[in-house]
Amino acid sequence: MTYRAPVRDMLFCMQELANLEAVSQLPGFEEAGLDTAQAVLEECAKFNENVVAPLNWDGDQKPSFWKDGAVTTTPGFKQAFRQFAEGGWQGLQHPADFGGQGLPKTIGAACIEMINSANLSFALCPLLTDGAIEALLTAGTDEQKALYLPKMIDGSWTGTMNLTEPQAGSDLAAVRTRAEPQADGSYKIFGTKIYITYGEHDMADNIVHLVLARVTGAPEGVKGISLFIVPKYLVNADGSLGDRNDVHCVSIEHKLGIKASPTAVLQYGDHGGAIGYLVGQENRGLEYMFIMMNAARFAVGTQGIALAERAYQKAVAYARERVQSRPVDGSLPTAAPIIHHPDVKRMLMTMRACTEGCRAMSLVAAAAYDAAHAHPDAEVRKQNQAFYEFMVPLVKGYSTEMSIDVASLGVQVHGGMGFIEETGAAQYYRDAKILTIYEGTTAIQANDLVGRKTARDGGATARAIAAQIEQTEAALARSASVHALAVRQHLQAGRQAFAEVVDFIAQRAKSDPNAVFAGSVPYLMLAGNLMAGWQLARALLVAEQRQAEGTDTAFMAAKITTARFYADHILSQLPGVRDSIVNGSAGVTDMALEAF
Amino acid sequence: MTYRAPVRDMLFCMQELANLEAVSQLPGFEEAGLDTAQAVLEECAKFNENVVAPLNWDGDQKPSFWKDGAVTTTPGFKQAFRQFAEGGWQGLQHPADFGGQGLPKTIGAACIEMINSANLSFALCPLLTDGAIEALLTAGTDEQKALYLPKMIDGSWTGTMNLTEPQAGSDLAAVRTRAEPQADGSYKIFGTKIYITYGEHDMADNIVHLVLARVTGAPEGVKGISLFIVPKYLVNADGSLGDRNDVHCVSIEHKLGIKASPTAVLQYGDHGGAIGYLVGQENRGLEYMFIMMNAARFAVGTQGIALAERAYQKAVAYARERVQSRPVDGSLPTAAPIIHHPDVKRMLMTMRACTEGCRAMSLVAAAAYDAAHAHPDAEVRKQNQAFYEFMVPLVKGYSTEMSIDVASLGVQVHGGMGFIEETGAAQYYRDAKILTIYEGTTAIQANDLVGRKTARDGGATARAIAAQIEQTEAALARSASVHALAVRQHLQAGRQAFAEVVDFIAQRAKSDPNAVFAGSVPYLMLAGNLMAGWQLARALLVAEQRQAEGTDTAFMAAKITTARFYADHILSQLPGVRDSIVNGSAGVTDMALEAF
Repeated sequence: MTYRAPVRDMLFCMQELANLEAVSQLPGFEEAGLDTAQAVLEECAKFNENVVAPLNWDGDQKPSFWKDGAVTTTPGFKQAFRQFAEGGWQGLQHPADFGGQGLPKTIGAACIEMINSANLSFALCPLLTDGAIEALLTAGTDEQKALYLPKMIDGSWTGTMNLTEPQAGSDLAAVRTRAEPQADGSYKIFGTKIYITYGEHDMADNIVHLVLARVTGAPEGVKGISLFIVPKYLVNADGSLGDRNDVHCVSIEHKLGIKASPTAVLQYGDHGGAIGYLVGQENRGLEYMFIMMNAARFAVGTQGIALAERAYQKAVAYARERVQSRPVDGSLPTAAPIIHHPDVKRMLMTMRACTEGCRAMSLVAAAAYDAAHAHPDAEVRKQNQAFYEFMVPLVKGYSTEMSIDVASLGVQVHGGMGFIEETGAAQYYRDAKILTIYEGTTAIQANDLVGRKTARDGGATARAIAAQIEQTEAALARSASVHALAVRQHLQAGRQAFAEVVDFIAQRAKSDPNAVFAGSVPYLMLAGNLMAGWQLARALLVAEQRQAEGTDTAFMAAKITTARFYADHILSQLPGVRDSIVNGSAGVTDMALEAF
Repeated sequence: MTYRAPVRDMLFCMQELANLEAVSQLPGFEEAGLDTAQAVLEECAKFNENVVAPLNWDGDQKPSFWKDGAVTTTPGFKQAFRQFAEGGWQGLQHPADFGGQGLPKTIGAACIEMINSANLSFALCPLLTDGAIEALLTAGTDEQKALYLPKMIDGSWTGTMNLTEPQAGSDLAAVRTRAEPQADGSYKIFGTKIYITYGEHDMADNIVHLVLARVTGAPEGVKGISLFIVPKYLVNADGSLGDRNDVHCVSIEHKLGIKASPTAVLQYGDHGGAIGYLVGQENRGLEYMFIMMNAARFAVGTQGIALAERAYQKAVAYARERVQSRPVDGSLPTAAPIIHHPDVKRMLMTMRACTEGCRAMSLVAAAAYDAAHAHPDAEVRKQNQAFYEFMVPLVKGYSTEMSIDVASLGVQVHGGMGFIEETGAAQYYRDAKILTIYEGTTAIQANDLVGRKTARDGGATARAIAAQIEQTEAALARSASVHALAVRQHLQAGRQAFAEVVDFIAQRAKSDPNAVFAGSVPYLMLAGNLMAGWQLARALLVAEQRQAEGTDTAFMAAKITTARFYADHILSQLPGVRDSIVNGSAGVTDMALEAF
């Protein structure tokens, strides 16, 4: 087996850190207690371990290919997607009204990690469909919902997000695709969209493209963008498929990784105009698209965690098996499996600690999302929403940057074998690199963190989180174990570093934006590192208690060591990062552009 | 043009930091002053920019391929290698007695950077040949030297290093290839060697394999390994080629990167035995191989710098050209080239500062090598040798780890385009990953640094270097410019962190090897970071002086900003790394092996 889902750790995070008990008391989530979580996770693990994971390497070796406008996916993908649909996995987090299972994100996020660990390229198709479903749920008419959602939720049809154009990547103000109103209330769409994940494929009967375009005469910039449904096949009123729409895949990209996931160039309207239907109101497209993007950004963060988990498991398996050199402490008279060597252990611990830290952070954020949506008290919803929104760029940015380092370490553990493609470790290194780019680069996440999430409220949300971290520091001090005290020291220093950077940003964002934005990505990395380390510190406290109770002591011992490792090796770097943010802008801004 | 050799910066490093003037006063290097350096570098730049660099992308797309035991290299490689040979580039650093040009390493290292920037895969062939030449110069008989060296130095023949076997990677004690003595004084060689760079190819008339093997009855372990010459074609006494030897390439690897460089599996002796000739004495093979390896390790470090330089240049070119979003400071009313954005500048500055820092470090080390070999005073030779040997694992380990981060940033600057293979940025990301693995992984370099270079002399060499750094701190304090003082602060903190780690290693290496080796790679990274930052600090002092004199003021201003950036953003991280080394072993050693 090439992948074994970390069900135990996921349940630990949900139960002990994300307070699944509280989630299951929210209206609508009454069934979503620990038993349900465990049953769902175990079923999900079985499916992904046995059906999806074995196709990962195939996808890399036999990528999707384009011919005459059609894309054929990797052999096996189509059948696996059928099983995915039949298992009801697409509808996991979506409303029962449209055929979904209505589970909370706290559980759904773990399932999304599993499918992405199993096969990042495969998982992208449901990931984008989830985003499209969210957007239609929020902004679609009742008719649109009735027509599209049941088929998308049961996996008969898939969805896409169409933002990027050749001249408009991160900057959506530059979108040029145009929409001409028709007499019947529909629009004709004309333009070129690029980087459309699963923009064309053979795994479903129809593809529901959600497309940003400008209605004739709309204002310039982002305030003139509208959102349209443009189905590959038009849909009749009874839900049956009608004519082929005028949207065509003219090529797919030749990429560094995620090769099985077709990245399409889509041409709209070359043969008279693609028929599109407005979603919500004209010129509010960006707002709706942000719903998809926020869901997708969180999911891409989960992809980072998922990839890191898989790379870790592969590296551990190799390190147990590969025999090379005697241990440095002379404890064995002969060559030993390399997992005995301190630097190999250090690499594996780095991979593990980063992965577990980010997983804990993301599941705690997911629980906040659930509370923000379902809690009866508006004030509680508001607080949770602010927390969740603060965490999204961290889950996305930090987990994905982390996954590149983890995948690189995974290759490194394999030594020369790691560089040979057949070994498979290199695939993760190649796949990981997209994660810091799509759904907004790390810099775009950092802009969001600095601008909308920190400066806008003067640092209030950030400081509220820092106050929560202080409570964890106090609990660590009360525990007073050697590990708790070591973790406390780094958590405190990290939290203070964070608070100082927040002050710097709150004070200077307007007066000296160049200095603040020169430190935006380091700030994101600092904050993500801190949040992951904070959750592991909380995990340590729980694990000490469970260990004292005699519960699952080996798991708890490993959790304590992992938290300790994270604090000593990763959290400990934060004061240095603070310095580079607060004092480091001269080295960026002083450089004359022509001197590069 | 896809690559422009950084001749100006190389000359600056040689002249102002590596004291080329002093090198040119060493016996044998009297011609190697600034004028020579400049002329050689300019000629070298022309060749590599125009002939070698354009083949880099071709090599990735049309890699070397194997058929029926023969390897055909990328179209154009053979002709380019002819031009390389005819230009005398293989002999640059080798003795005039055998047809070389006898230039110092201080100049040679810069030329090696250029060819590797131009084309890493192509450059590996001469790189390995250089190592084989070094080994024969040191340990070969006069007859062997006369027979092989002139042809290797003029580029008619190439050389290889044969260490690795399927069961023996980093651990050469496990080598099993055997050598049976023959009546005529030759040996018959039997065994399998893997990962042999340019172990088979079509660019030269003959290939001189240097092979580690055990003579029948030799002691076990590394003390029973001998070194043999095994030419692909036997060489007659008059230097003409004789029979095909019994060494055959049975396959080449399918790799993540450096695809044009054929990585061969070589089978020795399947058809009666490959004829080999002992180099030096029996059972001293490892010692001789270390000569090759040390030369090759330094050169691989240079490859890291070279790759980083090329990735930087590509990213700068894209950042100047790609227009996206308005500047955050509102300085332009419309979308600007992304080089205006602070985070893009930060990424470019990171790439540049790391590259220039490592280049300065490596050229200073190269000058020490020259003094260690050619200085008339034995004490000076000894000091320089100790300095050089300390620097080798840093140049190799730190520059190559750095190159992965730089190549990853290079992709990141390109956004979505970076993930598309045709853009070319992804090739550097793929190519870079081998550099931390071959010629000894970073962990192997770190073992060398901890064991042979630090613990063995109780930290004396390391402390002597720290004392030199203190002198630079004092000079920065005297300068008292705002930049010099900022750099001094981080240099001082970094040097103190280094000294504390050295004390920790000197005290604990024997009593607690697991704790020390758990921090070995972080120590290497700390030391490499410090040495690169130290050289940039020295560069800042020179640049301030030259700027005051009115010499090349734009170049000097950029150098000052780069040094400042490095100190604020990179050197500033060292106290955190010290903590993780000195206090961080528990998180590594406490983890039960079965808990991974």
